[in-house]
Amino acid sequence: MNDLHATRFTLLAGGSDARTEMERAIALSESSACAHVFTRTMFDEARAAVAESAPESRLAGLAFTSKDLFDVAGQPTPAGSAVLAHAPAAQVDSLAVARLRAAGGVLTGRTNMTEFAFSGVGVNPHYGTPANVSDTATPRIPGGSSSGAAISVASGAAFIGLGSDTGGSIRIPAALNGIVGFKNTARLTPADGALPLSTTLDTVCAMTRSVRDAVTAHEILSARQVTPGSVPLSTYRLAVVKNVFLDDLEPVVATAFERTLATLRATGARIQEIELPELADLQVINATGGFSAAESYAWHRLLLERSGAGYDPRVVQRILRGAGMKAHEYIDLIHARRDWIARIEKTLAPFDAVVSPTVPITAPSIASVAPGAERDDEFFRVNALLLRNPSIVNMLDGCAISLPCHTAGELPVGLMLWHAAMHDDAVLAVALQAERALQK
Amino acid sequence: MNDLHATRFTLLAGGSDARTEMERAIALSESSACAHVFTRTMFDEARAAVAESAPESRLAGLAFTSKDLFDVAGQPTPAGSAVLAHAPAAQVDSLAVARLRAAGGVLTGRTNMTEFAFSGVGVNPHYGTPANVSDTATPRIPGGSSSGAAISVASGAAFIGLGSDTGGSIRIPAALNGIVGFKNTARLTPADGALPLSTTLDTVCAMTRSVRDAVTAHEILSARQVTPGSVPLSTYRLAVVKNVFLDDLEPVVATAFERTLATLRATGARIQEIELPELADLQVINATGGFSAAESYAWHRLLLERSGAGYDPRVVQRILRGAGMKAHEYIDLIHARRDWIARIEKTLAPFDAVVSPTVPITAPSIASVAPGAERDDEFFRVNALLLRNPSIVNMLDGCAISLPCHTAGELPVGLMLWHAAMHDDAVLAVALQAERALQK
Repeated sequence: MNDLHATRFTLLAGGSDARTEMERAIALSESSACAHVFTRTMFDEARAAVAESAPESRLAGLAFTSKDLFDVAGQPTPAGSAVLAHAPAAQVDSLAVARLRAAGGVLTGRTNMTEFAFSGVGVNPHYGTPANVSDTATPRIPGGSSSGAAISVASGAAFIGLGSDTGGSIRIPAALNGIVGFKNTARLTPADGALPLSTTLDTVCAMTRSVRDAVTAHEILSARQVTPGSVPLSTYRLAVVKNVFLDDLEPVVATAFERTLATLRATGARIQEIELPELADLQVINATGGFSAAESYAWHRLLLERSGAGYDPRVVQRILRGAGMKAHEYIDLIHARRDWIARIEKTLAPFDAVVSPTVPITAPSIASVAPGAERDDEFFRVNALLLRNPSIVNMLDGCAISLPCHTAGELPVGLMLWHAAMHDDAVLAVALQAERALQK
Repeated sequence: MNDLHATRFTLLAGGSDARTEMERAIALSESSACAHVFTRTMFDEARAAVAESAPESRLAGLAFTSKDLFDVAGQPTPAGSAVLAHAPAAQVDSLAVARLRAAGGVLTGRTNMTEFAFSGVGVNPHYGTPANVSDTATPRIPGGSSSGAAISVASGAAFIGLGSDTGGSIRIPAALNGIVGFKNTARLTPADGALPLSTTLDTVCAMTRSVRDAVTAHEILSARQVTPGSVPLSTYRLAVVKNVFLDDLEPVVATAFERTLATLRATGARIQEIELPELADLQVINATGGFSAAESYAWHRLLLERSGAGYDPRVVQRILRGAGMKAHEYIDLIHARRDWIARIEKTLAPFDAVVSPTVPITAPSIASVAPGAERDDEFFRVNALLLRNPSIVNMLDGCAISLPCHTAGELPVGLMLWHAAMHDDAVLAVALQAERALQK
């Protein structure tokens, strides 16, 4: 089991060592740790780009990877599917890739993902499933949908793993691999040139190995400056939501979470237990299918007619839930969500951030959820557990960061700090302090 | 036939004469010209409010009316329906009413409207149909859906007629009654406390007797300042859209429009003829029902189940078109609209405003379209003609003003100046100049 705490490193201050860093990134990308991580690598272009990179730029030639759903000029955008493997090439870079490049980042490869970003498990029947970095004995799931992005960052092959988060797709793999994943308020980052899953819930964001790097990546992706301040944890008011978020915790997760709360309290953090009775309404609000079903069906309908047989059957099953949804049900959903958000925001207003386990379990084995109809029940059970906590924040239109809170010898466990929309800077501020407290 | 040009007057500069003006407004409201204009009057409250109004406030006690779909604290909000005539009273004023009151305006009554704001004709089977001000011999339609609002302003009973515009509901009655109706970019004015027809297309706005008053009303409703400048018409580039907008013009409309273009050209205006081939796509884009059908069905579904028999059958027919629409069709509509807007905005970019007839016809008689299944075909024919030009601007998410361009002895004809979203100040600037040129 790797101890990521020991090997964690963050962005270089300057670009003096850029070529050495790139060779190291490429060697790690080619190592067995990165098996099935890439759907396409661009090492030659990356070497050429580093040679030309400006040492004074923000990323100064550092390696980043891009989830397979982002347009890269000159390449098709399959989004982890087989049916779009030979789609027409994108004419221009997606805006997220363009911003990372403009900041001096060098793209080394497209990363594997759950087909069309469905599911938080990270299994892909077309391109293989990258294995979690935490356990070399038992291949465990990477988490998804940004599976390859997580491993590229956790293995050291990339400094920033560009991905997307619709129901936890950045935070779930971050939690399961012991790295940092920040899902900002969706409207802060542009989705131009990203193949959509749910236009309402999709958020373009990234994984990194530290909260400081998460701030850097977010500043680049959002083209804005974060002002998280730097005050002791004792000045913050934190909340723990008792219902739903703490249900069915695996013992190691429960232990890590309790220990983390104790550590935060020891630094003076004021942590108050609250209830969010509104969480019980989510099932009714989403009873007619939810945003992802309706919006993905709108996008996939024609492609499914032509090429449905080439899709992962587990993905088709989820998309088709959107086929029967009525327009008025979708409109009701939009209004119900708005009311639901307003009620929760009222409860959260007195707090700087909420503290939760990112996911209630550690990574199960790949074998237990591998493609195959006989494992579908287990796959969907695990998927529902993984999505449960993170997806509440997407429904809230909120922001959340997952940072590691396990200790050496434990499988990775993620701590999620979150709040409603546009509380990004406060959440990052608390996360910087929490990371420091947990590393002491 | 009244000549509104001769009697047009605008807002008082001060409040010195506020009580006299209010008595005059009340007398006009009680006159035969205002038969069926009000669903409720508040003359006693109005007299009390004028006595307390601040002479230094913007409206200094001047009378305004409010379309029956705006919440007024302590009253139900029937929106021209019988089924909501005894609905629970609103707790607080709609934001639009509150802003007009805060600016010193005094609410004298709720105005009649097409039931639930459907249709541009202005016929109401429950509360009667106010007659157009232009013709005392033949009762003609007022236009709708803000029918009573238009007559309250055109008759002199109010300075501002607060209304709403989803497909032309401010501009159609303004055009047919020879007054000014400004439909701003929807997002600039708040819809809080207004009963919705289409949450995507609804715009809270007003009718007045001059463009200057329209600027004042808009500044109050949008809580912002307009900077329309004041330069000669010759500095503006105007466009005339040749296709669709000029189809099937009644001779008097065609004549008035040509005369108006000549007048504008004589002042030095540069007017270029253009085509918008994208207008041909609207039928396909809206083939599955359009925004109003889906969004009104979402709002009315439960009420229709309980009280459908109490609705105007013509309204029920239009709402039910939304019942079968699929969620993915609605989502496709949102995306198709976005693309359509982008294409049109590109064509309009070089121009300051587009010049069109507001509607292709003058007001037909009430008798020809009065309630009754035997007149439904004629009603829907007239309705489609009235909505055709104005509704294009709603679909564009744009802004438009209708101002009179007929001469004494003609039935009123409206000139529509319009553009894409957020060009409001430029459109108002051109309108101020055009009004001056047309009054010479």
